[in-house]
Amino acid sequence: MNIYNDYLNTIKQAIQTDRLYENYSKKERKSLVKNSMSYQTFSASENGILPSLQDLMIQVPERKLNQRLGLHPDFAHLIGTENIEDSAIVSMFIDIKGSTNLFKRYSNPTIVIIQNTIQRAAIHTCLIFGGYVHRLQGDGAFVYFGGKEINLETASKNALKAATIFTYFVKNDLKELFLEQGIEKIFTRIGIDLGYDEDVTWAMAGTGEISEVTTFSLHTSLASKMQSYAESNGIVIGENMVIESKISDDFYSTVASRTMNNADRYIFQIPEESFRYTQYDFRWDKYLKTLDFVVTNPYTGRISIKSKTLNNPTYLKPIAETNKPYFNK
Amino acid sequence: MNIYNDYLNTIKQAIQTDRLYENYSKKERKSLVKNSMSYQTFSASENGILPSLQDLMIQVPERKLNQRLGLHPDFAHLIGTENIEDSAIVSMFIDIKGSTNLFKRYSNPTIVIIQNTIQRAAIHTCLIFGGYVHRLQGDGAFVYFGGKEINLETASKNALKAATIFTYFVKNDLKELFLEQGIEKIFTRIGIDLGYDEDVTWAMAGTGEISEVTTFSLHTSLASKMQSYAESNGIVIGENMVIESKISDDFYSTVASRTMNNADRYIFQIPEESFRYTQYDFRWDKYLKTLDFVVTNPYTGRISIKSKTLNNPTYLKPIAETNKPYFNK
Repeated sequence: MNIYNDYLNTIKQAIQTDRLYENYSKKERKSLVKNSMSYQTFSASENGILPSLQDLMIQVPERKLNQRLGLHPDFAHLIGTENIEDSAIVSMFIDIKGSTNLFKRYSNPTIVIIQNTIQRAAIHTCLIFGGYVHRLQGDGAFVYFGGKEINLETASKNALKAATIFTYFVKNDLKELFLEQGIEKIFTRIGIDLGYDEDVTWAMAGTGEISEVTTFSLHTSLASKMQSYAESNGIVIGENMVIESKISDDFYSTVASRTMNNADRYIFQIPEESFRYTQYDFRWDKYLKTLDFVVTNPYTGRISIKSKTLNNPTYLKPIAETNKPYFNK
Repeated sequence: MNIYNDYLNTIKQAIQTDRLYENYSKKERKSLVKNSMSYQTFSASENGILPSLQDLMIQVPERKLNQRLGLHPDFAHLIGTENIEDSAIVSMFIDIKGSTNLFKRYSNPTIVIIQNTIQRAAIHTCLIFGGYVHRLQGDGAFVYFGGKEINLETASKNALKAATIFTYFVKNDLKELFLEQGIEKIFTRIGIDLGYDEDVTWAMAGTGEISEVTTFSLHTSLASKMQSYAESNGIVIGENMVIESKISDDFYSTVASRTMNNADRYIFQIPEESFRYTQYDFRWDKYLKTLDFVVTNPYTGRISIKSKTLNNPTYLKPIAETNKPYFNK
């Protein structure tokens, strides 16, 4: 997808530099790679969103891009206190699988760039759709959508859109690049669930400065579990997500119908209370084509994002100039 | 183990309060529980280590207890920069499994206390043994041991000691408490590995304030994978850990010999380079009894920590007075 070109190029150049020295010893190679490129500069402004992703940014309303890890702004006041607060939220866990294989092929400085760039693509995509990055995990992330002022339909739709766009990137653009390099198994797995006000308790976790404001919620725990039920490049969502996002039933089917195992139908149940909670595969590939800012090329089937720049020049930002996404030789 | 008594009591009291209202509706119960206890106060000083754990603290040298999440002090200068730095480290992943089951039985305010207290017991134990808490994950944590000034034997032994003591707590004290409550499956899984200078690259991950200083290292990735190979209340360690901690071969055996599956012998291999990396079950229960600050009751087999307080009154700290570990009615 055109919007990720600058991310792909960053990774491509890192790989090319690494390959130049592949016949050297591990130690020499590492040092040569490190010296031959100054590490790429994602600008600090706007959280370093690279120019090509601006086309996506102008398609969705303005968001607060300046956030701090582990501190959702609506609940940041709980840090350092013993207070707890109930408030609905969407929890999304993005995992990138297979990246340990990178250590078989590349030197560490190159892996820093590859992993950071993939993770930043995920972070930036979520930020654009109003997500709050709660935790970095390896090269994945745990992200909240929603807050006190955001209705549940908007929050859950935004989460689905962010997950859809990022998964398309990993499944197509990134896969193509790694296949060229002989690395086959880089894929994503995403789990998303929504908890209502009565299900979600916000509180500080940890102690002193070793702390964050986090959710204690069945549905945060389930989102994390759903991730592990997702297939390669799959997205699994809980039934609250189906209800609140109001997506049509063309866009989801039970996980059990894929695995042919009825035990996978409910991700959680309390039989005594007749509480059974269903998990679904989200058909993001179908959903993608319904998004109003997406264009499908009728000949190639390729997806791209509409460019609004010609019609809406006021949206243009001076970010392209301040970013230097590539290595400086 | 006596040193965790204050943690256990905190959890016990939360459970008792919750049980008082178990016949009310979910919503009423939650509100009654919330109102009937002001949330427990772990003092901010010394990161809130509870009095009973002081007996352990005085057994090991003084550590820097005041840290910030995601910022190992030796590498904190990398934040906000594009610099990278090579430096050996031990990575430890602690996972608490089965806590989703808590949602079947308790109201959210109670779960906040249970999960936070277990996580704090883990954090405090690691801090006492010189660990640096890198990331909170659910009710588990990702912790580094070592740094620029700490030799690898000390760092790896400290990691093994912290993991051993905490696992004993979960397997025995915590299990007993939850069994009384009819909750069976709360257990821990730990993975630990060590990367040498040439294997570990420190760099900033993320973007802007959504960032941390982290390691890009095969052995950090492997530690996380090893966790998933651990049995209930098990600890899996990489071969670098075996070498550097200099533990005798009484204290480890290959994971493959437990699973009877030879594919589990190597957690990672690059056949072309004849690189094969073995993972081991760490026999923490045997190791525990060799620690010089541990006493085994010859009649009950129960483990406790030697009290040095009588011999070394200067070690005593005024923390006990400033902590209020229990709920205030």
